[in-house]
Amino acid sequence: MNLKKEMFKLAKGAKEASISLAKLDSGAKNRILRDVAKRIKRRSSFILAANAKDIRLARTLGISSALCDRLRLDEKRLGVIINSLVAVANLADPVGKTLMKWRRPNGVVISKVSVPLGVVAIIYEARPNVTTECASLCLKSGNSVILRGGKEAYHTNKAFVTIFKEALRGAKVPDAAVSFVEVLDHKAVDHLLQLDELINVVIPRGGEGLIRKVVSLSKIPVIKHYKGICHLYIDKDADLKMAERLVVNAKCQRPAVCNAMETLLVHRSIARRFLPQVARALRTKGCVIKGCDETRKILKTIGRATVKDWATEYLDLILSVRVVSSVDEAIRHIQAFGSAHTDGIVTRNRGTARKFMSEVDSSSVMVNCSTRLSDGFQYGFGAEIGISTDKLHARGPMGLDGLTSYKYVVEGNGQIRT
Amino acid sequence: MNLKKEMFKLAKGAKEASISLAKLDSGAKNRILRDVAKRIKRRSSFILAANAKDIRLARTLGISSALCDRLRLDEKRLGVIINSLVAVANLADPVGKTLMKWRRPNGVVISKVSVPLGVVAIIYEARPNVTTECASLCLKSGNSVILRGGKEAYHTNKAFVTIFKEALRGAKVPDAAVSFVEVLDHKAVDHLLQLDELINVVIPRGGEGLIRKVVSLSKIPVIKHYKGICHLYIDKDADLKMAERLVVNAKCQRPAVCNAMETLLVHRSIARRFLPQVARALRTKGCVIKGCDETRKILKTIGRATVKDWATEYLDLILSVRVVSSVDEAIRHIQAFGSAHTDGIVTRNRGTARKFMSEVDSSSVMVNCSTRLSDGFQYGFGAEIGISTDKLHARGPMGLDGLTSYKYVVEGNGQIRT
Repeated sequence: MNLKKEMFKLAKGAKEASISLAKLDSGAKNRILRDVAKRIKRRSSFILAANAKDIRLARTLGISSALCDRLRLDEKRLGVIINSLVAVANLADPVGKTLMKWRRPNGVVISKVSVPLGVVAIIYEARPNVTTECASLCLKSGNSVILRGGKEAYHTNKAFVTIFKEALRGAKVPDAAVSFVEVLDHKAVDHLLQLDELINVVIPRGGEGLIRKVVSLSKIPVIKHYKGICHLYIDKDADLKMAERLVVNAKCQRPAVCNAMETLLVHRSIARRFLPQVARALRTKGCVIKGCDETRKILKTIGRATVKDWATEYLDLILSVRVVSSVDEAIRHIQAFGSAHTDGIVTRNRGTARKFMSEVDSSSVMVNCSTRLSDGFQYGFGAEIGISTDKLHARGPMGLDGLTSYKYVVEGNGQIRT
Repeated sequence: MNLKKEMFKLAKGAKEASISLAKLDSGAKNRILRDVAKRIKRRSSFILAANAKDIRLARTLGISSALCDRLRLDEKRLGVIINSLVAVANLADPVGKTLMKWRRPNGVVISKVSVPLGVVAIIYEARPNVTTECASLCLKSGNSVILRGGKEAYHTNKAFVTIFKEALRGAKVPDAAVSFVEVLDHKAVDHLLQLDELINVVIPRGGEGLIRKVVSLSKIPVIKHYKGICHLYIDKDADLKMAERLVVNAKCQRPAVCNAMETLLVHRSIARRFLPQVARALRTKGCVIKGCDETRKILKTIGRATVKDWATEYLDLILSVRVVSSVDEAIRHIQAFGSAHTDGIVTRNRGTARKFMSEVDSSSVMVNCSTRLSDGFQYGFGAEIGISTDKLHARGPMGLDGLTSYKYVVEGNGQIRT
């Protein structure tokens, strides 16, 4: 069978399984998820052996020890995975909810009811826990999932999928509900991305290169964020002690993630007071500072930040700093260089905060708190399938509700259109 | 200036205008809409002269008199357009609504607030009232719109846009908030559809050919429905008098629209009783019937419906009929051949109705009422920008809310991520 046909068959199977999956009630779905958790616990040596194979291959291929560490599973990490499966089982079911219900003058009653999307394809890199996370969230929301992980975690991912499939068959659900692209050839993904009649959405998780490639090839809608160029603006009316704490947290708590701050904007009238203080705190954490000309007059020893810096996601302990003359200038900077991911203001002035909240059109706008809080778990969603900087469908941190659509159910007693 | 640059400039202008537009409060937007209505009234001769030009050209080009009639405006039709502009002004503002608000254990308060999408491109055919409808709905929802209408209505569309632009300038809003693609060259659209950094969504309105072309060319998300292959299933427990009335309405009240029924499914145990009765009623309306073998044993004089018929949107007074042995077979037929637009059941059995509602995954599922009710106005949305059979973002009849996204606003007092 050629690759194109093979991918069609895979997607067709997932689509058919999604019809069975959509009929399951919450109890049935949760039983499968708990069964997967139990099976992973019982068969940890099977998973760890597959993982050891990946690690051995990774070493042969000269993959960095940092990446190898991200790949590696042990009993402790498996425990975290098992707990998160049980946590997903304990979440509320996002489908079958009546979102709205109303009666029309002609007597029909209209209900807007949440339903699964159908088939979700996840294309991701490295960490094998993405496999169990995405498979469990899709199952919980009644969606079939097609998983395409990085080749570095191939055997581990396949072992996890094997266990999901066993649990599905145990519950008499077609095991194509959790499908796995076994073919390593890159062209497999190209074929999958053409199947817009079978797959409802693609969620790429990984670096900007992967995401841009998926978007350029896909006929299927893609939910994504390319990057997070996040800002904090320290207003003239800010509590500077709070501002310092938020800046250090937003930049340094975990610099390699998308909701870490990349550019700090500081109001001119407090720059002389605030910048030396925050610079000291940042340097203690090992953070390198680059600045605009005005920043460099205050912090004399730093390098110059140029237009290129304003548009760069460092994902590292580097911060660019710009002095601005007003909240309007801060907003314009964010509009020009931001990525509409997460941007915040620190101010005690409610009017200024309101202006910032209303005019900054980012998926999350923070007032007097860290950009690092923009996250599905922090928001209380209990899960996060990804973060979207798109404006269609889901925006910002995306929990189980992001994996649903809705339908209108119209109940009458003979009403016609006149 | 070459075409590609020209389209970039147009979209860039629309994007910039969308930032001003998003800042307007409801009162300001409604004043502009009412001003447009007044200006259309005052300058009806300007509009009608432009329309007369289109009609003259259409005749020269040998365009059918049916199409000419759809193009033609007169004082009465202008009156309808003016009323609908005022009606949009009177609708509730869909943006700035707090959709949800909650407090997290760490004290931050999260609000999910509706916001405009940004820039909406509408690509449509013939009828010039689509111009005023889409421009007013986009304006109301704080979105810039880029309009690309059919060449047959070119002068009329341009005249309407001129009036929108005058009203915008009168309110000191950049007039690029309502933009119009003046270049007739088809390539203009191809260039526009690449500008995913400037345009947030494309809504094509027209025949399946137009929509498929837009989808195949677009890098921007498209909201659409290709076609409406709508079904009514008459269950063994149906009220047959009601069923007859619903069948005639769903098929004949306006056969050329997407929510008209194309295939009738009838339970075997009532087929002998129901089919002759409904056939008489349909024939009175001039409807031609085609059927499966079993149907043809009952209605002897009709033609054969084949698999091709099940997949055809006639958009005409033609109905294909199939006898099925159960609600399950009806559901399987709809899953196999339907377009997930609107499908209904007629039954007095609540259990059967529940099964149908839950398993038929169409954007609208009707119980004991006509498929023709699936419509934004019938649902009470007060407007309809289109109908979506997609599952992402908006599904089914799409009112003003479909033209919005949301953002999370997180307000704290110094919270960090630990």
